[in-house]
Amino acid sequence: MENKLSLYQKQFAKDEFAKNCGIAIIDATPGCATVQMEITEKHLNSVGVLHGGALFTMADFAFAVASNTRGKVALAIEGEISYFKGVNSGVLTAVAREIFLHEKLGTYSVDIFNEKKELIANFKGTTYRKRETMPFE
Amino acid sequence: MENKLSLYQKQFAKDEFAKNCGIAIIDATPGCATVQMEITEKHLNSVGVLHGGALFTMADFAFAVASNTRGKVALAIEGEISYFKGVNSGVLTAVAREIFLHEKLGTYSVDIFNEKKELIANFKGTTYRKRETMPFE
Amino acid sequence: MENKLSLYQKQFAKDEFAKNCGIAIIDATPGCATVQMEITEKHLNSVGVLHGGALFTMADFAFAVASNTRGKVALAIEGEISYFKGVNSGVLTAVAREIFLHEKLGTYSVDIFNEKKELIANFKGTTYRKRETMPFE
Amino acid sequence: MENKLSLYQKQFAKDEFAKNCGIAIIDATPGCATVQMEITEKHLNSVGVLHGGALFTMADFAFAVASNTRGKVALAIEGEISYFKGVNSGVLTAVAREIFLHEKLGTYSVDIFNEKKELIANFKGTTYRKRETMPFE
Repeated sequence: MENKLSLYQKQFAKDEFAKNCGIAIIDATPGCATVQMEITEKHLNSVGVLHGGALFTMADFAFAVASNTRGKVALAIEGEISYFKGVNSGVLTAVAREIFLHEKLGTYSVDIFNEKKELIANFKGTTYRKRETMPFE
Repeated sequence: MENKLSLYQKQFAKDEFAKNCGIAIIDATPGCATVQMEITEKHLNSVGVLHGGALFTMADFAFAVASNTRGKVALAIEGEISYFKGVNSGVLTAVAREIFLHEKLGTYSVDIFNEKKELIANFKGTTYRKRETMPFE
Repeated sequence: MENKLSLYQKQFAKDEFAKNCGIAIIDATPGCATVQMEITEKHLNSVGVLHGGALFTMADFAFAVASNTRGKVALAIEGEISYFKGVNSGVLTAVAREIFLHEKLGTYSVDIFNEKKELIANFKGTTYRKRETMPFE
Repeated sequence: MENKLSLYQKQFAKDEFAKNCGIAIIDATPGCATVQMEITEKHLNSVGVLHGGALFTMADFAFAVASNTRGKVALAIEGEISYFKGVNSGVLTAVAREIFLHEKLGTYSVDIFNEKKELIANFKGTTYRKRETMPFE
């Protein structure tokens, strides 16, 4: 499994936007992924709170890793996020899990927690699964 | 109106995350906003396509501007995005319009277009409107 | 076009749930549909307001008709609705339009209006398009 | 607790639309609710599968019960459903749980299962909580 994790990390190290946001893969197994991001000044919005786009990006990245571990190239069709708590510092952890996997579609839920393990946001996203495979075998 | 646009631009110039993403306000009137972003390498995901998080951030920023032009501080409750077309270069334009405005809630739709005016993505978001006012009067 | 409308109406007359809700197709062209429902006591919830499920059903039915007029069997993957105004009587009209059509996916927006043409709710849904065709040619 | 369950059942027995759909409250505690519905011919769509509107209504009803058990009148702002499996017979069970509770907002997730305990659909909804209280004390 350790070897697979490094395969995932190697593939997703090519994600320039996630890299610029400072998001790192902590764990990943088929259908699941955990990522972390430390909030800095560059993540804040005009009122000094973590930007909804940064939070979404973090959830979306966990979703992308979780869905692509299934081997087929999985493209996001849609995603939605509910915001529960404004935050402006600390390390956030996003945990993605598979809700359902079809041959052609996959749906994932992502919970984002602060350091006190309080729920900050919840995301749900759906992918379309192509025939092409990811380089994970 | 021109004066108001510069008030909006001045307020949202404090948005560090949007600034880092290279997103600029092109136009804004009460309940509406248009923003633009030029896709660069730093916006791409691991397969070289514009990151869903970057697209969402752009829509979310147009939504934030449009909803806050109403005068009250408007906090996002939730947002959802549907992706229609992968892109990897060019200037994108996001146009936010108000669907409904309650005393306490507001709902906005955002369309994102490429340079050929093809629809790339559609976003919908809802805000909770606080009693506090924005510095736009 | 008139002939096509009766083909659509004939096919969707088989929809027992929509029939029980009293929803009728008023118009339909490729990618679009308009349906109507008169609110009666049986549509109300425990506080005497039109049930969210009845409003969703109306939107979902307009979405189903609009998406299936494209000829391929279109199955709903997901749908979401925003509620703007509580109502408890009158005739509602739901207008579905296509936002985007892929080979495999289609996305539709539905606006629901009361008799004063006020917006009551907005729906968005996505379908997966099968190879099988509908009997509309 | 038993007494509270009958209070909830008594209040929601006034829901004409849920009653017409044959949906019954099986269990409810603060923030949670379980409801059941037996699929009959009247719930089917034009292709003989359970109508998305019937499935949504069931989830929405579980959501309404769960959110109103908190004592304040809770009005749905929005709801979204992901469909995983088509069904056309049997008894379905929907289980609603609270994801987050603010003073003014509440968010709930609902899972719908068939008799084999397979996941059929997943719903998420958000309410606005009024000052008025429900008659549950």
